[in-house]
Amino acid sequence: MLDIGTIPTYADMLAAHERIRPYVHRTPVLTSAFMDELTGASLFFKCENFQKAGAFKVRGACNAVFGLSDDMLARGVATHSSGNHALSLSYAAGRRGIPCHVVMPRTAPEAKKAAVRGYGGTITECEPSTSSREAVFARVQAETGAEFVHPYNDPRVIAGQGTCSRELLDQVEDLDIVIAPIGGGGMISGTCLTLSHAAPGIDIIAAEPEQADDAYRSFKAGHIIADDAPETVADGLKVPLKDLTWHFVSNHVADILTASDAEIVAAMRLTWARMKAVMEPSSAVPLATILKNKDKFAGKRVGVIVTGGNVDLDKLPWMKG
Amino acid sequence: MLDIGTIPTYADMLAAHERIRPYVHRTPVLTSAFMDELTGASLFFKCENFQKAGAFKVRGACNAVFGLSDDMLARGVATHSSGNHALSLSYAAGRRGIPCHVVMPRTAPEAKKAAVRGYGGTITECEPSTSSREAVFARVQAETGAEFVHPYNDPRVIAGQGTCSRELLDQVEDLDIVIAPIGGGGMISGTCLTLSHAAPGIDIIAAEPEQADDAYRSFKAGHIIADDAPETVADGLKVPLKDLTWHFVSNHVADILTASDAEIVAAMRLTWARMKAVMEPSSAVPLATILKNKDKFAGKRVGVIVTGGNVDLDKLPWMKG
Repeated sequence: MLDIGTIPTYADMLAAHERIRPYVHRTPVLTSAFMDELTGASLFFKCENFQKAGAFKVRGACNAVFGLSDDMLARGVATHSSGNHALSLSYAAGRRGIPCHVVMPRTAPEAKKAAVRGYGGTITECEPSTSSREAVFARVQAETGAEFVHPYNDPRVIAGQGTCSRELLDQVEDLDIVIAPIGGGGMISGTCLTLSHAAPGIDIIAAEPEQADDAYRSFKAGHIIADDAPETVADGLKVPLKDLTWHFVSNHVADILTASDAEIVAAMRLTWARMKAVMEPSSAVPLATILKNKDKFAGKRVGVIVTGGNVDLDKLPWMKG
Repeated sequence: MLDIGTIPTYADMLAAHERIRPYVHRTPVLTSAFMDELTGASLFFKCENFQKAGAFKVRGACNAVFGLSDDMLARGVATHSSGNHALSLSYAAGRRGIPCHVVMPRTAPEAKKAAVRGYGGTITECEPSTSSREAVFARVQAETGAEFVHPYNDPRVIAGQGTCSRELLDQVEDLDIVIAPIGGGGMISGTCLTLSHAAPGIDIIAAEPEQADDAYRSFKAGHIIADDAPETVADGLKVPLKDLTWHFVSNHVADILTASDAEIVAAMRLTWARMKAVMEPSSAVPLATILKNKDKFAGKRVGVIVTGGNVDLDKLPWMKG
């Protein structure tokens, strides 16, 4: 059962925003007449791909790392992550000068592994499944005694991710909808945390790959359904919901929409070509679902959270075959 | 000889800024701790790759098109361009609802040709040399009677390009240097126009491909040296200086630095990988020259004008071979 005391509050999010401000970018919001014409909506892209370490996850990671008590600093932090949280936690730990231990699937993009090492993180590889990742992580944590910062099911992380929507509200007026990708649910939970308090009239929509649609099925079923090792081009979105993120999803998300891998790659290519923004596949899922569900978005002012831009430039998905 | 009356003034630039404001983006300035560490400088990237039509050239094009007198509207505008000016003039003409005739080299990227047509421009192809381009253009202009908007040697265009530096001054304090690519010299001239008046203490540096270094050689020789059909990956920078742009370059540019095609491609890839910004090869020339001349920039606050992001995503230069 979820301990109600662990649910982060709006005040926690505001405190996070103050705490992380020196270490993160206030990312710009881009608009595109082309995209608006294509979709019939007014889209406001909150570009966390331009964030430090290339993704929104640095918000939550910095909040956790810079909130650590002094007696924890020597042992540092540890996590498991499909990529961006690993980068972000390494970045945050590097800024605070403490150790960072990361368990990553051996199949994670080389670019992400190199970046983790570049920030000073130590990588231990696991198999690309939730079960292997958790087993290897338990060993690393036992050996190091480091503070576990879960990539999403952690109140410090969720409060940090909520700062993104806080900025979006300051940057764009009168939004009708905010849409963000959903994997483990960290960004969506932060979005719910902020908007349910500061702008409860805004519909929050989650966008998910069809090939890893556990959040969609959980949402429809009314309880968490977790898959082990789904396969999708959106490699940041393979992980399942957990109790804290399920709390926010089940209470505040208006709908979950899905898109196929082909639709995701097409949307990704379109953003590169027309918006000149390097987005990773996961970041393109919201646009892919908007293009599939135009009626739902037509005439609306829509905040689109672009979650990250960490891709392997030598293996672009439209170059396959 | 240059007619002094054709030299655009600071007041022309301010008028241009008011005229074009509804049709262009105030583009964001991005910073990157990674790039600062790599170069030893503080770099402020003015991201015109996020500009309407994907390049700064929409500033000058809109100033020319929206400054046209009513009796010229029916015949429209015409130009020759290696790409981005073609897109931009087509975009501007489309917004004003007037015809736009464009002469483009048949070797221009397909993505640029498609975008010109998408904005409603009419393309006539020429050979990829200055001489062919000018001959074909003379015929098109004679047939249509359209108003010639030169891609850079036009006071309306230079005044428009100068609005980019005006914004940069508002966005970043205490710059020591502003660096921009140089081809025909339109952006550099606009930069000189604005900075020589509003911030004369800032050094203006131009960056040019080694393989199309006619501006560099002109600068050293003290008079315009023009090449016909140079070959470089920076396809926006193949054109020569003309009298108006030479006026600004010879009077206000502190230095011209060059980089090889390999250095340009490496800098381009680095910006994609680390800044998540799709920059075309021409846009990466300033960073390439900074990386080659670190002593010149170390400890300085440097505005870097990222001129555009129009690339063919199926033919990325690091994918060659």
